[in-house]
Amino acid sequence: MSAQSTHAFSEVPGKYKVRDLSLAESGRHQIRLAEHEMPGLMALRAEYGESQPLAGARIAGSLHMTVQTAVLIETLTALGAEVRWASCNIFSTQDEAAAAIVVGPDGTPDDPRGVPVFAWKGETLEEYWECAEQILVWPAGDDDDAEYRGPNLILDDGGDATLLVHQGVAYERVGSVPADTRPGEPDHSDENNVVRGLLRRVLQEDPLRWSVVAENILGVTEETTTGVHRLYQLADAGHLLFPAINVNDSVTKSKFDNKYGIRHSLPDGINRATDVLMGGKIAFVAGYGDVGKGAAEAFRGQGARVIVSEIDPICALQAAMDGYQVARIEDVLGEADFFITTTGNRDVVTAEHLVGMKNKAIVGNIGHFDNEIDMAGLAAVPGITRTEIKPQVHEWTFESGTSIIVLSEGRLLNLGNATGHPSFVMSNSFSNQVIGQIELFTKDGTDEEYPTAVHRLPKILDEKVARLHLDALGVRLTDLSKDQAEYLGIDAAGPYKAEHYRY
Amino acid sequence: MSAQSTHAFSEVPGKYKVRDLSLAESGRHQIRLAEHEMPGLMALRAEYGESQPLAGARIAGSLHMTVQTAVLIETLTALGAEVRWASCNIFSTQDEAAAAIVVGPDGTPDDPRGVPVFAWKGETLEEYWECAEQILVWPAGDDDDAEYRGPNLILDDGGDATLLVHQGVAYERVGSVPADTRPGEPDHSDENNVVRGLLRRVLQEDPLRWSVVAENILGVTEETTTGVHRLYQLADAGHLLFPAINVNDSVTKSKFDNKYGIRHSLPDGINRATDVLMGGKIAFVAGYGDVGKGAAEAFRGQGARVIVSEIDPICALQAAMDGYQVARIEDVLGEADFFITTTGNRDVVTAEHLVGMKNKAIVGNIGHFDNEIDMAGLAAVPGITRTEIKPQVHEWTFESGTSIIVLSEGRLLNLGNATGHPSFVMSNSFSNQVIGQIELFTKDGTDEEYPTAVHRLPKILDEKVARLHLDALGVRLTDLSKDQAEYLGIDAAGPYKAEHYRY
Amino acid sequence: MSAQSTHAFSEVPGKYKVRDLSLAESGRHQIRLAEHEMPGLMALRAEYGESQPLAGARIAGSLHMTVQTAVLIETLTALGAEVRWASCNIFSTQDEAAAAIVVGPDGTPDDPRGVPVFAWKGETLEEYWECAEQILVWPAGDDDDAEYRGPNLILDDGGDATLLVHQGVAYERVGSVPADTRPGEPDHSDENNVVRGLLRRVLQEDPLRWSVVAENILGVTEETTTGVHRLYQLADAGHLLFPAINVNDSVTKSKFDNKYGIRHSLPDGINRATDVLMGGKIAFVAGYGDVGKGAAEAFRGQGARVIVSEIDPICALQAAMDGYQVARIEDVLGEADFFITTTGNRDVVTAEHLVGMKNKAIVGNIGHFDNEIDMAGLAAVPGITRTEIKPQVHEWTFESGTSIIVLSEGRLLNLGNATGHPSFVMSNSFSNQVIGQIELFTKDGTDEEYPTAVHRLPKILDEKVARLHLDALGVRLTDLSKDQAEYLGIDAAGPYKAEHYRY
Amino acid sequence: MSAQSTHAFSEVPGKYKVRDLSLAESGRHQIRLAEHEMPGLMALRAEYGESQPLAGARIAGSLHMTVQTAVLIETLTALGAEVRWASCNIFSTQDEAAAAIVVGPDGTPDDPRGVPVFAWKGETLEEYWECAEQILVWPAGDDDDAEYRGPNLILDDGGDATLLVHQGVAYERVGSVPADTRPGEPDHSDENNVVRGLLRRVLQEDPLRWSVVAENILGVTEETTTGVHRLYQLADAGHLLFPAINVNDSVTKSKFDNKYGIRHSLPDGINRATDVLMGGKIAFVAGYGDVGKGAAEAFRGQGARVIVSEIDPICALQAAMDGYQVARIEDVLGEADFFITTTGNRDVVTAEHLVGMKNKAIVGNIGHFDNEIDMAGLAAVPGITRTEIKPQVHEWTFESGTSIIVLSEGRLLNLGNATGHPSFVMSNSFSNQVIGQIELFTKDGTDEEYPTAVHRLPKILDEKVARLHLDALGVRLTDLSKDQAEYLGIDAAGPYKAEHYRY
Repeated sequence: MSAQSTHAFSEVPGKYKVRDLSLAESGRHQIRLAEHEMPGLMALRAEYGESQPLAGARIAGSLHMTVQTAVLIETLTALGAEVRWASCNIFSTQDEAAAAIVVGPDGTPDDPRGVPVFAWKGETLEEYWECAEQILVWPAGDDDDAEYRGPNLILDDGGDATLLVHQGVAYERVGSVPADTRPGEPDHSDENNVVRGLLRRVLQEDPLRWSVVAENILGVTEETTTGVHRLYQLADAGHLLFPAINVNDSVTKSKFDNKYGIRHSLPDGINRATDVLMGGKIAFVAGYGDVGKGAAEAFRGQGARVIVSEIDPICALQAAMDGYQVARIEDVLGEADFFITTTGNRDVVTAEHLVGMKNKAIVGNIGHFDNEIDMAGLAAVPGITRTEIKPQVHEWTFESGTSIIVLSEGRLLNLGNATGHPSFVMSNSFSNQVIGQIELFTKDGTDEEYPTAVHRLPKILDEKVARLHLDALGVRLTDLSKDQAEYLGIDAAGPYKAEHYRY
Repeated sequence: MSAQSTHAFSEVPGKYKVRDLSLAESGRHQIRLAEHEMPGLMALRAEYGESQPLAGARIAGSLHMTVQTAVLIETLTALGAEVRWASCNIFSTQDEAAAAIVVGPDGTPDDPRGVPVFAWKGETLEEYWECAEQILVWPAGDDDDAEYRGPNLILDDGGDATLLVHQGVAYERVGSVPADTRPGEPDHSDENNVVRGLLRRVLQEDPLRWSVVAENILGVTEETTTGVHRLYQLADAGHLLFPAINVNDSVTKSKFDNKYGIRHSLPDGINRATDVLMGGKIAFVAGYGDVGKGAAEAFRGQGARVIVSEIDPICALQAAMDGYQVARIEDVLGEADFFITTTGNRDVVTAEHLVGMKNKAIVGNIGHFDNEIDMAGLAAVPGITRTEIKPQVHEWTFESGTSIIVLSEGRLLNLGNATGHPSFVMSNSFSNQVIGQIELFTKDGTDEEYPTAVHRLPKILDEKVARLHLDALGVRLTDLSKDQAEYLGIDAAGPYKAEHYRY
Repeated sequence: MSAQSTHAFSEVPGKYKVRDLSLAESGRHQIRLAEHEMPGLMALRAEYGESQPLAGARIAGSLHMTVQTAVLIETLTALGAEVRWASCNIFSTQDEAAAAIVVGPDGTPDDPRGVPVFAWKGETLEEYWECAEQILVWPAGDDDDAEYRGPNLILDDGGDATLLVHQGVAYERVGSVPADTRPGEPDHSDENNVVRGLLRRVLQEDPLRWSVVAENILGVTEETTTGVHRLYQLADAGHLLFPAINVNDSVTKSKFDNKYGIRHSLPDGINRATDVLMGGKIAFVAGYGDVGKGAAEAFRGQGARVIVSEIDPICALQAAMDGYQVARIEDVLGEADFFITTTGNRDVVTAEHLVGMKNKAIVGNIGHFDNEIDMAGLAAVPGITRTEIKPQVHEWTFESGTSIIVLSEGRLLNLGNATGHPSFVMSNSFSNQVIGQIELFTKDGTDEEYPTAVHRLPKILDEKVARLHLDALGVRLTDLSKDQAEYLGIDAAGPYKAEHYRY
Repeated sequence: MSAQSTHAFSEVPGKYKVRDLSLAESGRHQIRLAEHEMPGLMALRAEYGESQPLAGARIAGSLHMTVQTAVLIETLTALGAEVRWASCNIFSTQDEAAAAIVVGPDGTPDDPRGVPVFAWKGETLEEYWECAEQILVWPAGDDDDAEYRGPNLILDDGGDATLLVHQGVAYERVGSVPADTRPGEPDHSDENNVVRGLLRRVLQEDPLRWSVVAENILGVTEETTTGVHRLYQLADAGHLLFPAINVNDSVTKSKFDNKYGIRHSLPDGINRATDVLMGGKIAFVAGYGDVGKGAAEAFRGQGARVIVSEIDPICALQAAMDGYQVARIEDVLGEADFFITTTGNRDVVTAEHLVGMKNKAIVGNIGHFDNEIDMAGLAAVPGITRTEIKPQVHEWTFESGTSIIVLSEGRLLNLGNATGHPSFVMSNSFSNQVIGQIELFTKDGTDEEYPTAVHRLPKILDEKVARLHLDALGVRLTDLSKDQAEYLGIDAAGPYKAEHYRY
């Protein structure tokens, strides 16, 4: 892998590459505690451990390699799946979780229950995409007679694994990969060039690699707004290569992970990064979708005054009715102490905005991509200097002498500056992922097979995910009586709401 | 009309029947102030006043005859419609609003801008359904050559006007109306017998009355969960007679009226009824849908501790994540000071529950029908006595000497004990109604005509309703740039979200 | 009494004067329900009913004649006191409560348990002060041999009864009452002239009336910030004539009545007056003392955005740390939808402010005196017109055509537009009053007699008041163990905190 | 120092002893950022930098050696003081802050602006008290002719420095130190034995050391509830040796540090320690004083349901009125997910409580001493095992197999698991400290000299501290007009409230 990486690694070629296997013991501790906080996954293990619905499944997973993901991975293997894993963000790996997964439950690198992982905190872009490649390329098993050894399912977060396959197939069809772009050209992106370089190499090695991979994939489950957006675009353009389950739009994902997860991990990230008081301060939150709602609630819960921006009049009206001021960023630059983006859109905070901010304003992104804040534009401000306060916390000082603090270089601050969403929240998201994988795998070849399109999980499964998490919170559900169910014209066991119900 | 009514009325046969036209002046004052609080409706008057899109529309309106509804009615007429109106609840009419609408903007009973209204506070069930009949029967106009003079649109709340037409048509088809049920028989209901009596009379008068009415109706707009539920049931059974627009499920209705309206009017109703402190008390809220969410927030905002019950695991999980205890009613009977139903379901509070409650517990319904609380069962408790503290507030004393306070006899307490939702909230709901009426009327006969089914308003119109209310709240919306809109793959003018987005 | 009053009264000269004794039955109902909400007073009746600590006490009460006050009055008589009562605000009397007190628990005007009351809703200033005089002048009892028949205790709210005695004594000492002032003269006040007129008359009737009254008074208990302020001024100037207990600064008064009471009754008053939505609106609250804190919390709990003004940097910092914007009124005139004063200061909202407000802004005072808002200045704005929307709700329209809504003519809106604090809150305040009266009366002539100064109740009694209200809220207190009490160096039974503790 | 310490140190005997001077650069960065968040201290530097009111002051500081304390120390030296410093908790030192203070603003260990510091994270008890001794023993200066070189002021947190002096003097007076106690003896405490050992040694070295030190001390400023409590006990017993200023009870300390600081640092500590979701969980908070209020608000702001316990009926009533359940710990052991003590009392959580808790319950103390939770009792539970998850996070597993997580071994979790209060909060507390030191030092020998007693800062200085922090929060204060000030009978410049006002 890339020579830019100066760290020593625990590496077994083709099997795993993580930072340091000696971290595994600490990782195992954390996994054991996280299991207590992930009642949904543990309930799925209990329910399906015996029937092994994922026996035969080979899952390529691309999702932040954290302690919580470790519990997900071990749930998938407990249900019978083979798994290979990479992170979906260069900064988000918790090295001790990666190591713990490699060594398996109580094991050593030779433990057969260990899972190949390709991930470490602080990958370069080249390393990142090489790791993505590794989860889509499976070494032949020792006792493996199958003609094909590769993934038959993708479990995705942000859609990078899915993108690699789709783009690979597209280039294979035309027989070549476009030339790299250069800085200054329209649509130039360093990362695109890295991907093209990789695909150019693979095309030389094997001109049908991605077509074969794609053909064998039964489907993908995807859990981010951005990844899902890409999937709908592919489907609309007729380019989608296999069915996709949009896990992001399960209520127990979008309303829980996005809202309640952010409510937890946004202040956590800010605290660990800066130790700055939120109470009494002014926090600007760009966007009032689920992520923005969670962010605003977190700030309010700490006694900050929140100002929201929105492009959608409905969300704007919601923000106002929830008691927040709704303004444009350009009108509050000199006033706010925190600027947090939650939009999934680009250029929400421009270089011009950054220059105009209050001295020592704290700027971070908790939406999705790092283009919400124009980091390149910031770096290009004449006379600016950048000081690392600590990893993932940088002070950018303008010629005027004032400065701003940027968290995680504009990438997701809850992952870069803290440990991401807490286990309980991820248990909701990941239970949807596991159920989605079971759906795709077990219904393949049946009448209920998912066609090549983007699907949401049936509401009854969404309700199931919620149900698996109630006991842990001391919730006692009320049963619908037979008469009441008839009166409402629904089944007493659910689903309880119309498809368009908004919760 | 019924002899049970002991009041004097301002009555012009076939034209209107309200309590007292001398109340009109006070009503006009209140309407003028309400207009300031209904920026959506006023903006629609400004936008469409000249083009008169509803010219030729004849609207039968069945919706609580309040001051806010008065602004709605005058918006419909400002857009060209002819209108006849009844209330959709026997207690919900504000008599001064009814009078003000009859006399018109600055007028007298002879003012041509006056609108026929059939509604007063405290109707009997017989009176209520006779009023409903009146809005569906139109006297021939003086200069009217049309073969048919009747409504061509229904604007409904709860679905009673729609029900009368559908049930009328059903009985006309079989040529008879079933006999009344008697107390003790299954499904006996006094109100059903009243409806049957009315339809029996009409069937004698004119065996095709309802078929003709139905044939001429272009559609109905309906704004309650319950009414919409009935419509979907009719559509599913293939019995729906004309297209319906489900206004209830516009975001600007369900998330605003149901949630923010209740947040306002629930404590208002409790205060006016009882003057009892909520702070420090325990409030049990049955149901955590939009109405329940608003109710819980209102209690919490007053310093009460809220306990929620739910049948839906997703909503239950939401309640827990919002910090509320989730329990069953039977486990908190002796603990809670307030019991509020918000479910739209029946028998949520049974007589057995009522008997077990804490002394002086306050019980009320803010869901929809009065069967959420088993009032009949309460009245049948041996040895119970009922004392009227004031209108719509009754103390029911058990043999043990303890008592409970029931608001509005189990009907909607925000209407019975207060003045319903505030104008600003209703401006959202009613803007959806007006836009829905325009859609049905102007698209009739065009390629975009709504087929006979239940529809929701297109998202772009929902967003429009929100947009019309932002200025009044000082909200400054952010514009999407061309680049950003392209990046997201949406139109910069909206709609901004996928259909399944939950807000 | 004044000829300006056009109502008929139930009047027995020297005994009582209330609006209408036929309202008594409704009042008795309300009192019975209020007793359930006033556990502190009921507990005091249970504790002291037998020992009759107030036997021989003759209490002149000047406090809003509401249903809650009725429970207070009957608690005082249950403890043995004789009582005469007036309201302390021209608008605050609930006529049915006044009537119910006059007729006594189940009685008639001749029932000996009936208490003389001089109060009705909507008194003129002349009537108001004549009522105040009535409670300080006691007719000789039938079987009364005492030389002196007059009050020996005052129970005051706002200090008007105390003021009348002190001012009367002052004028008796100089032998004359100053001439009336005329409009335009410095310090002119209509009300001052009314008081002077009354004292001039009394001085002619009996040149030593007030000196005799004052001499026989053992003390006063006072429960408002304003009244207490006057008492400290009198004490500082050496003019205080008898001991005073500052009930206002009991924690269970200042932190409960002022904060939690306002949280309840402010939105209640606004709702009953205007039916205007608070959610999504901007509310300006002048002052962030206890009343302001309750007001801000009430608005926030309804989804409004709150802007606070303060003169005290500590309270301003508290407001900021609680997440509120802190600004000056002149900077938000065009922005806020509600303007509420809570300061106890004068000219907080000037005529200039009023003229500059947003169209249809709602303006009210919940502090103390009606000089917080410059109503006289408003009336003097050239071209202004005043329209009564309903009693206590007036629209003031400027020449420009815009208008503002003023509640209760600038007087306390929770009393004028609603029913004041709820019973539970008043139970705290009034338990302090009762205990204060017992202290003054039973310790007179003992070693613990209160000297002529302003006192607060001992903390242990303040804690007692709290203790009497816990059961009703389901609170289970933790007992301090002997070891723990020793460790803290306090008595396990309390008091638990140092005198300067702030709660 | 103690041989138990296995770390290497940067040590200059008699001058400083910290972990590692190479951490200084990182510490300087953090100090520079903290200065921005400590506007009160920076304003004091600006106001007093020139006049040097502390020139000649020799301050012995015992207070958590954090980055914020570094800004305090450099403020004291900027005002002219000489300073020596130790931490007041064995775990609370931030080693980079200690190093940065030693090297001074841009310096090296030889920089004369460097301040002697004796503190590192993870001291043993022996080391801790030896550090305390070091700040009270000053080496003779090079050019120092003074007879006495030692502190003339103490700046204390928790009272340990003050205790050492007072106990030292007490033993000098009797001429001996009592023998050590042994485990099992009443009042045995390892820490007491450590203190006695130290004092025994000193008594041999110099039988009048502490009497000389005490004689030269002009006073102490103390900022904790516990330390202040000790001071009042000393004063009540007539043993106080010098005046003390109770900084803890400045409003800007008690209501800000205790409440708003905890609101910030409690969830921060829990997050860093456990990464466990608070939302939807049940949090038990022992105590509803200022610390408890902040803790409860923090949990609620994160969507947890809070149950409070109290011994004081007034605080219990406040908790109920704020919407919290008030119960006893023994009634919620199996229900709560978090147990946090905030009381300042001992044995609030007993071993019996700990054994009965829900599996994986998280237990921590944010009150003051580590005796709030009976850690010794826990360690003595038969069959229990203790696993270190990470430093300051231990899992205690019972024989049954269930376990609980204890933070910071029962010591202050916001210091042990996070970085303590944020700078802005500490700026309030420390501005009070600085002003208190100025008061003691500059008024010594004047008419306004503080007598030997416990004092609070005058309210006008408390208001000054608040005032210094408003600009940074964008607060615009309203000025009192001359007329208004007269009306209220106060000075327009403050103080604005009576001494007993509670805020």
